[in-house]
Amino acid sequence: MIPRYTRPEMAAIWSPAERYRIWFEIEALAAEAMAAIGAIPADAARVIRERGGARVANITEADIARIDAIERETRHDVIAFLTWLGEGIGPEARFVHQGLTSSDVLDTCLAVQLARAADLLIADCDALLAALRRRALEHKLTPTIGRSHGIHAEPTTFGLKLAGHYAEFARNRERLLAARREIATCAISGPVGTFASVDPRVEAYVAGKLGLAVEPVSTQVIPRDRHAAFFCALAVVASGIERLAIEVRHLQRSEVREAEEYFHPGQKGSSAMPHKRNPVLSENLTGLARLVRGYALPALENVALWHERDISHSSVERVIAPDATIALDFALARLTGMIERLVVYPERMAANLEALGGVVHSQKALLALTAAGMSREDAYRAVQRAAMATWTRLGAPDGRDFRANLLADPEVAARLDAAALDAALDPRRDFAQVETIFARVFGPDAAAAAP
Amino acid sequence: MIPRYTRPEMAAIWSPAERYRIWFEIEALAAEAMAAIGAIPADAARVIRERGGARVANITEADIARIDAIERETRHDVIAFLTWLGEGIGPEARFVHQGLTSSDVLDTCLAVQLARAADLLIADCDALLAALRRRALEHKLTPTIGRSHGIHAEPTTFGLKLAGHYAEFARNRERLLAARREIATCAISGPVGTFASVDPRVEAYVAGKLGLAVEPVSTQVIPRDRHAAFFCALAVVASGIERLAIEVRHLQRSEVREAEEYFHPGQKGSSAMPHKRNPVLSENLTGLARLVRGYALPALENVALWHERDISHSSVERVIAPDATIALDFALARLTGMIERLVVYPERMAANLEALGGVVHSQKALLALTAAGMSREDAYRAVQRAAMATWTRLGAPDGRDFRANLLADPEVAARLDAAALDAALDPRRDFAQVETIFARVFGPDAAAAAP
Amino acid sequence: MIPRYTRPEMAAIWSPAERYRIWFEIEALAAEAMAAIGAIPADAARVIRERGGARVANITEADIARIDAIERETRHDVIAFLTWLGEGIGPEARFVHQGLTSSDVLDTCLAVQLARAADLLIADCDALLAALRRRALEHKLTPTIGRSHGIHAEPTTFGLKLAGHYAEFARNRERLLAARREIATCAISGPVGTFASVDPRVEAYVAGKLGLAVEPVSTQVIPRDRHAAFFCALAVVASGIERLAIEVRHLQRSEVREAEEYFHPGQKGSSAMPHKRNPVLSENLTGLARLVRGYALPALENVALWHERDISHSSVERVIAPDATIALDFALARLTGMIERLVVYPERMAANLEALGGVVHSQKALLALTAAGMSREDAYRAVQRAAMATWTRLGAPDGRDFRANLLADPEVAARLDAAALDAALDPRRDFAQVETIFARVFGPDAAAAAP
Amino acid sequence: MIPRYTRPEMAAIWSPAERYRIWFEIEALAAEAMAAIGAIPADAARVIRERGGARVANITEADIARIDAIERETRHDVIAFLTWLGEGIGPEARFVHQGLTSSDVLDTCLAVQLARAADLLIADCDALLAALRRRALEHKLTPTIGRSHGIHAEPTTFGLKLAGHYAEFARNRERLLAARREIATCAISGPVGTFASVDPRVEAYVAGKLGLAVEPVSTQVIPRDRHAAFFCALAVVASGIERLAIEVRHLQRSEVREAEEYFHPGQKGSSAMPHKRNPVLSENLTGLARLVRGYALPALENVALWHERDISHSSVERVIAPDATIALDFALARLTGMIERLVVYPERMAANLEALGGVVHSQKALLALTAAGMSREDAYRAVQRAAMATWTRLGAPDGRDFRANLLADPEVAARLDAAALDAALDPRRDFAQVETIFARVFGPDAAAAAP
Repeated sequence: MIPRYTRPEMAAIWSPAERYRIWFEIEALAAEAMAAIGAIPADAARVIRERGGARVANITEADIARIDAIERETRHDVIAFLTWLGEGIGPEARFVHQGLTSSDVLDTCLAVQLARAADLLIADCDALLAALRRRALEHKLTPTIGRSHGIHAEPTTFGLKLAGHYAEFARNRERLLAARREIATCAISGPVGTFASVDPRVEAYVAGKLGLAVEPVSTQVIPRDRHAAFFCALAVVASGIERLAIEVRHLQRSEVREAEEYFHPGQKGSSAMPHKRNPVLSENLTGLARLVRGYALPALENVALWHERDISHSSVERVIAPDATIALDFALARLTGMIERLVVYPERMAANLEALGGVVHSQKALLALTAAGMSREDAYRAVQRAAMATWTRLGAPDGRDFRANLLADPEVAARLDAAALDAALDPRRDFAQVETIFARVFGPDAAAAAP
Repeated sequence: MIPRYTRPEMAAIWSPAERYRIWFEIEALAAEAMAAIGAIPADAARVIRERGGARVANITEADIARIDAIERETRHDVIAFLTWLGEGIGPEARFVHQGLTSSDVLDTCLAVQLARAADLLIADCDALLAALRRRALEHKLTPTIGRSHGIHAEPTTFGLKLAGHYAEFARNRERLLAARREIATCAISGPVGTFASVDPRVEAYVAGKLGLAVEPVSTQVIPRDRHAAFFCALAVVASGIERLAIEVRHLQRSEVREAEEYFHPGQKGSSAMPHKRNPVLSENLTGLARLVRGYALPALENVALWHERDISHSSVERVIAPDATIALDFALARLTGMIERLVVYPERMAANLEALGGVVHSQKALLALTAAGMSREDAYRAVQRAAMATWTRLGAPDGRDFRANLLADPEVAARLDAAALDAALDPRRDFAQVETIFARVFGPDAAAAAP
Repeated sequence: MIPRYTRPEMAAIWSPAERYRIWFEIEALAAEAMAAIGAIPADAARVIRERGGARVANITEADIARIDAIERETRHDVIAFLTWLGEGIGPEARFVHQGLTSSDVLDTCLAVQLARAADLLIADCDALLAALRRRALEHKLTPTIGRSHGIHAEPTTFGLKLAGHYAEFARNRERLLAARREIATCAISGPVGTFASVDPRVEAYVAGKLGLAVEPVSTQVIPRDRHAAFFCALAVVASGIERLAIEVRHLQRSEVREAEEYFHPGQKGSSAMPHKRNPVLSENLTGLARLVRGYALPALENVALWHERDISHSSVERVIAPDATIALDFALARLTGMIERLVVYPERMAANLEALGGVVHSQKALLALTAAGMSREDAYRAVQRAAMATWTRLGAPDGRDFRANLLADPEVAARLDAAALDAALDPRRDFAQVETIFARVFGPDAAAAAP
Repeated sequence: MIPRYTRPEMAAIWSPAERYRIWFEIEALAAEAMAAIGAIPADAARVIRERGGARVANITEADIARIDAIERETRHDVIAFLTWLGEGIGPEARFVHQGLTSSDVLDTCLAVQLARAADLLIADCDALLAALRRRALEHKLTPTIGRSHGIHAEPTTFGLKLAGHYAEFARNRERLLAARREIATCAISGPVGTFASVDPRVEAYVAGKLGLAVEPVSTQVIPRDRHAAFFCALAVVASGIERLAIEVRHLQRSEVREAEEYFHPGQKGSSAMPHKRNPVLSENLTGLARLVRGYALPALENVALWHERDISHSSVERVIAPDATIALDFALARLTGMIERLVVYPERMAANLEALGGVVHSQKALLALTAAGMSREDAYRAVQRAAMATWTRLGAPDGRDFRANLLADPEVAARLDAAALDAALDPRRDFAQVETIFARVFGPDAAAAAP
């Protein structure tokens, strides 16, 4: 992933040096387990740990170049690493990687890396959830128009909007936890997964030390349905980011102006038009969501490897494992910052809410008429008539608001007088259940709490 | 989905008549709940249930055409249905759909349909798991060559191959259960999810009766991250089908011939070439997997609806909800039948296992040499030398097998005599842990059981 | 594709009866060509054409059921058809399909079907282009605000917006023509494409009669890169539909209201809210675009068939070939109707254009200041200052418009007096090049023409 | 893209320094054009070219860091660059970027970069085509079995296989040319594409100097359907790479061994199994194809930008433009090298061709029987009978080859004697049209030429 969208903590997981450290840890743990069951000399395991550990702890760019050079000859990355490692261990190096196959190291390492990446993403979610919760509570009762199809529907509150996104990211957090469980397995089972030359107790030991589960049946590899599920989960999370980003983009558009990304001192919105303040963060997040979605596809195509494995998944994962996790980490953090600093304009929300002359209360009128005995079809027609009359003359000198148009309609007037209509249209009904919903999302205490 | 890939039970879920029955059930339950809390007259709920129930129970093609005709005028499917329904209920029809919005009905109905579809898919998985288990136990100790990169690696058993696929489908079953939980929620919350004109107790009642959870925050719709996760899960399952299908295609190819799809009496493999017996079922499954993967993408794009909802998801779901579930149901059933009747050729497996002159035991030789004190690098080179000498003269008059080439190598001979080498290459080591793995996958009893 | 999104002319291409008619035509043409070169008796070709033609011309549902029944036994669709066809031809039936393989018939048939489908789609584009041209000319000089990032940028015209979409669909039409050329090839080359039992002159004859090119190298099949390119082209076209649909959705949103989908008498926008008029057509088109995009993926995965062919592409194409072409045909037609009847509100466009107090002319002020000798950075800061002052006090009692704020700024005032500023901000400059652009898109005459 | 899959020439196109050089070139050309029409002083254009050119020609890492620092303040990349550039130009810097908007620079730069990338990819195709042509001619008449469904079908030649891939890559080359035309356009049209503050002659001049076409209607941006088509073309090319890679993987699998990737001295196939020689290059190409396919999706989603533009496409393109072109460049080059050095085993091809006892000639027997008057159905059954008898007793002591089984069948024997059968099965017929096909693909001279 390009530096622009990379945060250091996630990038560190995917650095070559870190990968070699994890490879070594797996080999060292395997050697310890083999020594414990007498498969290799106990001294060998100790020497491997000590000398190998020292070599890996201080791995330099020159070392990495040296490993690359060996790989250019052997055309095999794990062998290149083991050769370099062996140079630092001495004769005991022959007890490294005993009975293992490269994938034992590679796939278990990938599990460690993806699990750590998932931990960061889950922490990112936690930060986002905290920001959403705070802003949702802050605006629990800030009235705003609810929109379906981009058209004003009925009133809601800005806090309710955010509560919906909070609930979605709470689900996304669960999905990330499930995704982590999917990929957090260890395989040390040899060339075709039969443990022909390595004892299953080695696998159990390494898995335990690394905090991984044992893969029940590995072939040569950990099965790729796990990784497909992992990257699909990232795609779902990314799509949730996009939903919130698009909400902000809509709220900031010039005709709406209900909320706005924080505009920094010194910031310039356009090279041509000095007046511009653009929702560039949320637009950027929209694009990042597309990227992360795109990475799920090759992961799905990776599942159907040939026989006990082919290596077609490898080039895919070398790219998408860092790219998808780094992009999503960046996007979650950027979204969190954007929500934390989002500038909200309750007065604009109020103005928009009133902009259509009250037609947004049409359902309440409809229900009042059916309650008063009118058929649903007749009531619908009457209310639609009044609403359209309001809507089409909006702002015109002869325009009337929805309430007036209703009362001017003989069919309506025959059923409801002004008092009855006002009771029906009482806007307080719109927010009567906000607490109920907040209690569902944030728990009873949080809902009642001040922000 | 085209009839060719459609099974009736899954298709029934998606028929117009069934959709209308579910819509009615939701409306009738909502009316009951409203009557119970005094929001509408109790009699109204009873009349709705009785007269509406009768109307829907006997819905005919003519009725469906009538609803379609009303929709052509109103351009709204739920209103068209309600109008038709109301014609059979009479004046009490005005108490139907009180305070609800169309999406309350549509999305809750979709939840019912997807949950039922998931139930069928889970049952499909169960049947497939049973077939895989039976064949895995049957071939627990049938030796076959394990292959990585399409190249002979080390021996494994055909049962182990199937056990791996069993484990994958056990995971897929879990994923389908999780996917079912994702989408099995009910929303009866009104136009923008505020319960402005409908009591939350109505939603709780309908949800309970339909076996659904309550959606914590609906906007106008149930949030589409749920559906995205659902269709992604189907894509992962489909990719698992593809993996097994590709295994069978490989096993059946002319040079391998280790297993074969059952060839029916009367079946013809080719219009041109009467000798052909093609793995057409597994090839078909490969294509179906591509289809189901393709359906996940629009589902992911559906997540980011505008504001409280837009209806862009609707056309997507009208197509992919039936198409993806029907195709996957068909594919799982076809795969199950294919596995049940798969013709396995153990003698061909044995022949292929021996075909490379024993080089598939190279790791055992490598480990014996390092155990005898050789460095890993030197041992690797010696064994590679012997293996390549075997491989390149395979079948030649002057060809020697791997064992002979090893013993003819002075470096090897200096470390290992024939007896030591034979002990190292003992093929019984390859299958020593099969029971261990079977116990992991099928449980200790199943593993020990005869097939 | 579901009936809701299916138009009859496109559906007819994909009916079983039509498929059988094309299959027969290919077989009959091949027989004629073989007779002409003496490969089969001339009488046989005549009998095949006459009796076979009669049989196919009157194909009934019962016939189709009979073919299906034969297929259930033979598990081969082409053999089933040939058997049924042969029943009507008699002994000469043995000269049908001589030296051909099923794919010769299937792939050439698919080429005929996709070429016809492309013809319909191209005609759809023509109708859409005509509608876009008419509305673009109608609104060539209807001022409206141009927006970037959803934020008001500078004035443009509604005609220019439509001209941009016209240009995109002119490109899409070219892409469909190219896509048609991609797939309009014929292969009659036998089981592995070697013409071992069929003369290449047969292929040339059939291709010529069907208006197809000869496939230079077929294996058993016409290579699937052609079809992948075809379905990718549909995905690009669909994405262009989405772009225009989203424009309309934005223009119709309540705060913008610059244009609106035609709302039919009797139409109902919402079951709950009688006031609603929603952009349901353009939302529907957004979803259909997602579907068509989704179909491109399995087409891309179909390219890498095994060896001379595997049949994994078949199930994919049985579904996506009709589904993608039918959905796109429907979408193009729906879009055309929507554009033809789009209700445009120039007065709302004018109102929105003025809504931000003139800040949308900020670039003109910037350029005037740099022309007057100010550095770009200083000019930018001055103009940004005036714009932000305007923007943040918009509608406030003490708010000033952009011009006033500029003139009140000492740095600006030092460079420009009111007359100079007014000259710089002259709105006529915004539309000075509209004719130039129209001439580029519609040609010099059309641009000058009245709508 | 990670260094492992990056070649320097393609990477250079996407370096920050190169991007700044192209940005400057666009600005300098625009200034020249403005000077020529009197829009800015002629001296200004000269100073911009000289001082700006010097500044950009020697751009250092420190300069890039300085631009990044300005961007952190302004949060706008083009402004940051212009500020840095202006520091080197002096007062005349105020005439840089006059009337332009950032996208004029960004999109025209992207066009230059993508066009150059396309040129490299086209050159890559040329190299691949040359390699395929050479190997195809070399093996024009090397017999090998053609396979459908992975099952032996009829004989073909290895050269014919390669000719098919050559023809596919000739099409891919055409697609890349078309893709290049798609994106090679220039827009210098100002903030919403109206040329409000920049003369269209500036655009024409810049376009001409850069070898680009003028974009007929830009909004603020060059429309993204062009880029979607571009990345779809890359996806189709990548899928063609995958098809050839999978062919090689199949040919190298242990049971087939008809061809093999070159195995370097010193190369090691497996860390565990010294005997392994794996088709790692073609497996790697399979994965890279998945990656490039995955990048097409976000490009398609980028088409539907909001109004005159939103910037959601930007993050996508910052990643996929380099990643997709770099990965495809690497893949094409790797594939070329693999084909050039592919080790082909004609003797293994011959052995496999004979391995099924002659059943691969079943169509010739079928045609001989129908020519001899048998009905197609009866002939099919007789030949199928003989083929299955051969197939199921393959290698058995009592096994007979296909010819013998045919002659032993009374129904066959009644129609054909041994001489007639041998004439029918004459294998020379299989290759009679190879020259014809080669002439189609490579032209008449090339086909006749020695390799």
